[in-house]
Amino acid sequence: MVNIDSLLLPQWIIPIEPHNEFYIKHAVAVDKGRILDVLPEEEAKRKYQPVTTVYLEEHVVMPGLVNAHTHSPLVLLRGLADDLPFMVWLKDRIWPAEKRWLDEAFCRDGMELALAEMLSGGTTCFQEHYFFPDILAEVTTKAQGRACLGMFMLNSKTNWAGRLEEYVDKGLQFYKQYKNEPLIKINLAPHAPYSLKDRELIKIKEITKELGISIHMHVHESSAEIIESMQVFRKRPLLRLHDLGMFEVPFQCVHMVQLNDKDIELMQANPKIGVIHCPESNLKLANGICPVQKLLKQDISVSIGTDSAVSNNDLDMFSEMRTAAMLAKGSTNDPTAVPAAMALRMATLNGARAIGLEQEIGSIEIGKSADLIAVDLSAFNTQPVYNPISQIVYAASARQVTDVWIAGRRIMEKGELKTLDKEKILVKAKKWQEKIQSREGNISKSSGII
Amino acid sequence: MVNIDSLLLPQWIIPIEPHNEFYIKHAVAVDKGRILDVLPEEEAKRKYQPVTTVYLEEHVVMPGLVNAHTHSPLVLLRGLADDLPFMVWLKDRIWPAEKRWLDEAFCRDGMELALAEMLSGGTTCFQEHYFFPDILAEVTTKAQGRACLGMFMLNSKTNWAGRLEEYVDKGLQFYKQYKNEPLIKINLAPHAPYSLKDRELIKIKEITKELGISIHMHVHESSAEIIESMQVFRKRPLLRLHDLGMFEVPFQCVHMVQLNDKDIELMQANPKIGVIHCPESNLKLANGICPVQKLLKQDISVSIGTDSAVSNNDLDMFSEMRTAAMLAKGSTNDPTAVPAAMALRMATLNGARAIGLEQEIGSIEIGKSADLIAVDLSAFNTQPVYNPISQIVYAASARQVTDVWIAGRRIMEKGELKTLDKEKILVKAKKWQEKIQSREGNISKSSGII
Repeated sequence: MVNIDSLLLPQWIIPIEPHNEFYIKHAVAVDKGRILDVLPEEEAKRKYQPVTTVYLEEHVVMPGLVNAHTHSPLVLLRGLADDLPFMVWLKDRIWPAEKRWLDEAFCRDGMELALAEMLSGGTTCFQEHYFFPDILAEVTTKAQGRACLGMFMLNSKTNWAGRLEEYVDKGLQFYKQYKNEPLIKINLAPHAPYSLKDRELIKIKEITKELGISIHMHVHESSAEIIESMQVFRKRPLLRLHDLGMFEVPFQCVHMVQLNDKDIELMQANPKIGVIHCPESNLKLANGICPVQKLLKQDISVSIGTDSAVSNNDLDMFSEMRTAAMLAKGSTNDPTAVPAAMALRMATLNGARAIGLEQEIGSIEIGKSADLIAVDLSAFNTQPVYNPISQIVYAASARQVTDVWIAGRRIMEKGELKTLDKEKILVKAKKWQEKIQSREGNISKSSGII
Repeated sequence: MVNIDSLLLPQWIIPIEPHNEFYIKHAVAVDKGRILDVLPEEEAKRKYQPVTTVYLEEHVVMPGLVNAHTHSPLVLLRGLADDLPFMVWLKDRIWPAEKRWLDEAFCRDGMELALAEMLSGGTTCFQEHYFFPDILAEVTTKAQGRACLGMFMLNSKTNWAGRLEEYVDKGLQFYKQYKNEPLIKINLAPHAPYSLKDRELIKIKEITKELGISIHMHVHESSAEIIESMQVFRKRPLLRLHDLGMFEVPFQCVHMVQLNDKDIELMQANPKIGVIHCPESNLKLANGICPVQKLLKQDISVSIGTDSAVSNNDLDMFSEMRTAAMLAKGSTNDPTAVPAAMALRMATLNGARAIGLEQEIGSIEIGKSADLIAVDLSAFNTQPVYNPISQIVYAASARQVTDVWIAGRRIMEKGELKTLDKEKILVKAKKWQEKIQSREGNISKSSGII
């Protein structure tokens, strides 16, 4: 008998790799934070002597979900401004509110609430594109969560920084502070092609190269962005980025709802480009639909992000992958587009790749970090079970996640978060609600009072 | 003090009528199964002496959701065949499986599982389009649920009936048996224009007129249906139905994904037509997108249905209304299309209207039946709350429903179903799973075993 930390005994395992497979009555052996073995249950019981045995008789065990794009602290503005024209929403509501409220405390409390939502909903890793990355890192590390945090880059004044030089300084300072933190990965997060000048983008590329990391940026998010780029640069944004040599480094384009065949050709010729698809945000803001099926056919890696909770309005990767699968079918008139197993892969292994962590997380393979979740399928809405992959993608709710492990540590046990204080988080959320509501005033057509 | 049965004291009430309003710290007074009053909390406490006071400090109270179109027993085939071409899915998988398994026991056990899913997820009324309506009525009545059951009509052999005459006989027999059952409404449910001849449709219309009820039928569900109708009748299906006088009776068209401007004109000219929108089913089967915003602009009433669990794959009206709101925006490039309050109205009051119960359910108005649900918004994903309507539509999960009342009876209390036996239902689901899986064989690309 081999002594190990823990043995998980679920009804089903979805390993992601190999693709579109599931195992019945198998075990995952975990030791020193890593996946040591995946093998039939009976064999596992004979071979391993675990400190902890976790019986999961009605559950799927699968890799934790990877939310490849979000702006977490904005959960504090969730539902503040919905159903508005895009520019009214952004310029009249979200940006002014952000300007009024963005500070360290907002980011800390917002990150805690977001982390609670994500961890309890089976998201074990997320990629941030937001201000105050040091605060986000502090909260995430304390909760023993895993994140990829962006060194946010812009060249205009916000409550975090003023000129690009200041963003760079703060970014590099953050990088030095957290680069050796085991659960924190750092990428570069410039805002968007339209908000940065050519020489600024080149500078960002040089920093990225020097640090050996990757870039994660909003690209082709709206038709307005394309029109403006054609007017100013006589090039579509993607071509402009290409001509600046931005695709010499690993480059994740977020949104990509406005793509023509030339764009896709350009992407094929640049193997360091990946796409982060945010289907619910794109739908809700009516910016367009990313042609995911076309991209996948050209072997371009697509992952999934929720975007922020002011766009969609949650950080629920279950609902996001379901929408990704259904929307791909509906928008192409092809019911075979993005099958369940592909949606699940986009939300796990492809997300890991988007972040540069494909060797570490995203699938249940021997040697990888034990970033795992257990999903209880005994709920009415996921019975009976012919194919657990279908149930996970098309029927399960984030609220059926019962257990979460990150690097082998059990962060959630039987529905209870172990590293975050639920009551305190909710009290703080309520305080923000009162403070923000009193200042932002009438937040919907409804007066709220009769 | 007035003696009443119960007083509900939630944080928020969403009454649906008036439209796009919510009340803070108000009470719903319930007596003899009906809504007696809606008034400020303090006033309610002075005025009423309830037998039961229900404190719902973190909750929204709103009308129960109305699933305007489903085929409930098919939950037993959930996930059996996904991501397939439409005709392969329907003709090679679903119909043969249905032919093999459809009987009274299948309908009874399937209805129980579906009812458990719907009730626990806040759906207090649903409209059925399926075989064995007597069995569905029996199960629903026993669980004290509310349903509108269709007298299913077809002219081909199924496990339930053979010729149209037999469907009519069985339907009428069912009608006589259940027409006075308080929680059961009965409508006529002919399958689709393409599966019935002109004279058969006319006969169905005559029965409908005679009984003073309404019709609920799949119409314009796929482009194939339109092409076939043009070939055979030289008319689009909607015009054919119109020319047969079908719209002399209240007529709910399910799906309507293939509409041109002439179809919409025809609908405007026929005020008895309503539309039942099943966005997730339409997306997943890639049949098209119903132009909901256009219909609403022409004052055509649109309600929402989940369709069956082999299409989508759940009976979750929260997710369905969210998809309806987002898809309307994404498919029209208009982020103001189908705002949250409209999606919620479609899933409640418009659903009631689709069934012919708009005087009885669908809104919190004095005199209406107390068909109510409480939704706990204290979950991470629905905090903070600026506008509970936004939270319900864009962020809440069906699993946040804690309490359900139908005609004043508390069917679910603090998350626990009172009229259905959870354990027994799950045991039966598992038995069906084993039986069906052993016969249907390899049900996915995955072998299920390594």
